[in-house]
Amino acid sequence: MASHYNPVTPELIAKLKAVAGDKNVRCDEETLTQYQTDEEGNPHYFRKPEVVVFPETTEQVAAIVKLANEFLVPITPRAAGTNVACGAIPIYHGIVLEVEKMNKILDLNEEALYCTAQCGVSTNDLQAAARARGLLYAGDPSSSENCAIGGNVANNAGGNKAVKYGTTRNQIYSVKVVTPTGDILTAGARLQKCSTGLALEQLFAGSEGALGIITEVTVKLRPLPPYSFNMVCVFKDDAKALALPNKILKAGIDPTSLEYMDNEAIAMTSKFLDMTFPHVEDGGCYVIVTVESFYEDDIDRKMEKLVELAEANGSVDEFEADARIWKLRKQFAEAARAIDKMFQTEDFVVPLDKIPEMTAQIPGLTKKYGLYCVTCAHIGDGNIHVLPLNREGLTPDEWFDKIKAFHADLFPRVYALGGKMSGEHGIGFKKLEEFARNTPAAELKVIKAIKKALDPNNIMNPGKLVDMNGDFVK
Amino acid sequence: MASHYNPVTPELIAKLKAVAGDKNVRCDEETLTQYQTDEEGNPHYFRKPEVVVFPETTEQVAAIVKLANEFLVPITPRAAGTNVACGAIPIYHGIVLEVEKMNKILDLNEEALYCTAQCGVSTNDLQAAARARGLLYAGDPSSSENCAIGGNVANNAGGNKAVKYGTTRNQIYSVKVVTPTGDILTAGARLQKCSTGLALEQLFAGSEGALGIITEVTVKLRPLPPYSFNMVCVFKDDAKALALPNKILKAGIDPTSLEYMDNEAIAMTSKFLDMTFPHVEDGGCYVIVTVESFYEDDIDRKMEKLVELAEANGSVDEFEADARIWKLRKQFAEAARAIDKMFQTEDFVVPLDKIPEMTAQIPGLTKKYGLYCVTCAHIGDGNIHVLPLNREGLTPDEWFDKIKAFHADLFPRVYALGGKMSGEHGIGFKKLEEFARNTPAAELKVIKAIKKALDPNNIMNPGKLVDMNGDFVK
Repeated sequence: MASHYNPVTPELIAKLKAVAGDKNVRCDEETLTQYQTDEEGNPHYFRKPEVVVFPETTEQVAAIVKLANEFLVPITPRAAGTNVACGAIPIYHGIVLEVEKMNKILDLNEEALYCTAQCGVSTNDLQAAARARGLLYAGDPSSSENCAIGGNVANNAGGNKAVKYGTTRNQIYSVKVVTPTGDILTAGARLQKCSTGLALEQLFAGSEGALGIITEVTVKLRPLPPYSFNMVCVFKDDAKALALPNKILKAGIDPTSLEYMDNEAIAMTSKFLDMTFPHVEDGGCYVIVTVESFYEDDIDRKMEKLVELAEANGSVDEFEADARIWKLRKQFAEAARAIDKMFQTEDFVVPLDKIPEMTAQIPGLTKKYGLYCVTCAHIGDGNIHVLPLNREGLTPDEWFDKIKAFHADLFPRVYALGGKMSGEHGIGFKKLEEFARNTPAAELKVIKAIKKALDPNNIMNPGKLVDMNGDFVK
Repeated sequence: MASHYNPVTPELIAKLKAVAGDKNVRCDEETLTQYQTDEEGNPHYFRKPEVVVFPETTEQVAAIVKLANEFLVPITPRAAGTNVACGAIPIYHGIVLEVEKMNKILDLNEEALYCTAQCGVSTNDLQAAARARGLLYAGDPSSSENCAIGGNVANNAGGNKAVKYGTTRNQIYSVKVVTPTGDILTAGARLQKCSTGLALEQLFAGSEGALGIITEVTVKLRPLPPYSFNMVCVFKDDAKALALPNKILKAGIDPTSLEYMDNEAIAMTSKFLDMTFPHVEDGGCYVIVTVESFYEDDIDRKMEKLVELAEANGSVDEFEADARIWKLRKQFAEAARAIDKMFQTEDFVVPLDKIPEMTAQIPGLTKKYGLYCVTCAHIGDGNIHVLPLNREGLTPDEWFDKIKAFHADLFPRVYALGGKMSGEHGIGFKKLEEFARNTPAAELKVIKAIKKALDPNNIMNPGKLVDMNGDFVK
């Protein structure tokens, strides 16, 4: 791999310290090792930064980005580091820009229903701040206890309420961004509609740090619906369970959450949590449904309708989805990690009416590649997390090769049904090659043209989303 | 103004005919005169094209765009020509590309709730096709009887249901686009969520033809709510009327439409329609509210709540908003046109909580510039249409100068409240200079960088949105 960048020099370190303060610039081995990965567990992907900087203001971020251009050194922005597509791994080494110190909620306006927060604010804290005022921040990634709002926006995080409220891009009014050339920009505005210029806030949302660093976000808040029910519908037949969501969505039940766990996923996670759950032993899989409303009778009516629909479509039991069930759902990835820290999370998404056709192909496909998988899904969005687990103890490189072969077979099937490879995790470095292979040339050309236009030196999270240097996509 | 482009030559005409067929390439004086303007009535802005082409397929559009690049001739895309920001006027002459022959609905899937249509399909036809299957296409510009879906997307049209369903950008799954260099691209997909690449469909939506020509769209359909009520709340005090919408939105009434007409607007339009309406004589203004639901009791409850809220906040009367009322609302612009075909439509948008502060400034401001105005608003979105009418019979250039002075005073006030100059009409050519003046340099820089990256020869609707040639923004 040719060297496109300069090494981080003592001169650059001194200038970074002048910008961010001595204590906020670290080059010690322990720090560099800590930042060689994000949520990724396969050492195949690990890369150490040369320096980690902890800016405290947008202006510091802008100054650091200008230095990166001046010294031709790559920058990898990072919020909470919960990315599962190697999005926060410094592929070309250089600078990791960690925003964890930019963690203040700047404004929460109950009357006007918005909140402005720095990028490093944890999603959990943002949700809690809203809830304390009787309001809802509707972004809710499964990683909400660990992730940060800046990363959520950069990645267009999805989660458990996207079926009703959309993904993170639908929660934002505006974002403050430091562009790859170090300008500070506010994209979007606190408006219900706008046809003034380009929708830059939508372009930056989901751009995975490749088009700039999001330093502040202004998100929508909503009144918190006072009534709700949570229900598990149990199925003995995966196909029947997977056909239910589309029926629920068309029946006007308007769920806030609509989740699926297969029997293997329930069994694995219940073992991890050392808790017992109904119908695990007899092969049950779960469809978990949350409905919220401003009216109690509306809740009653929808609950009745749901039970009727579930039973007419093969549900063998229904019971309340209490906090234990949501713990089961949210700890699924941790349970997988406990078995195999290199576990792979698929994240493909298909049109709702194509879910049965897509999921029917998975057992044959995993068998073909000798993969043991557990499955969980934001099924109301068509977003399916199949998790291959390395139970055979393959080496990092062997596991990498095996997953690569699986992807080469899986993704064309997803795209053939009108799907895409990522519903919420992004491309990052991990799916760079598959993204290039499965994306039409005209679309890649536009993405590269925009990247080149905004980041002429390719210093902003290089090696993610698109391979501008031509090092990885063969 | 320096000449950046070549004239349309007989050689280019011959090549256009080879692409689109003889009958689809017109240079006759009558056609050129017809296409010198769109909805704009002030001859100050009129510019004649040198040729008008009527392609029938996406491939023909792409071939025409390639010719435009080869011959360095500007292209102005046009669907139904209902733009009110001079967006479809060929500022640099050259080619007008009229898509009216691309008017087929290609696929309407009742089960999967989507519709794919060519760009020239009239919005009215699209709405009707959905309604015939018991479904709703939620885009509903006031011009729906005359406009086309391609233009709606290119402009991110708003309208009367945006308060509930969002603007046109929220209705789209994907768009087929011919890029400024003549590539054919499908941006977006029929998915509930996606974090695969950049949100290009959101970038193209609202880009006003400056980044490419939208040739097909796939839009969301929804179940049509079977129950609804339509109500007019009458106020004698504009300020009280304008304070109501925010209260309605926060009361969980969830209106589909939330419109405002001042007394002058009602009087003008009722005279135009030769119809009488309640409280016109005694100075009443209207807040028009539509609520739709899947449940009849929900409708009853919300109607009661609305009446209670309206009366507590100064409403002097409430009555049913029947088809006559909606005719009044939708014919407002036509009524203005009947008085003065050069009438100006302001389209600014402010945060909901800033509506009273913004609207309180309008009477003093219009008085200062000696402007007679009528006002109508998508008030639930904070999108306010103040219409100055040229009742003094100023010449086109005098009127242009007067409006320019008014804008120079108005827009900074809008921006000071966190607003923007256009909620749904776009920048086009008409607001090019004001957009540049009111937009921060870093934002303009990004917009120009993207424009330059996608349209290196600046042949795609030049003179709109941004002044790449430096001819108009001083």
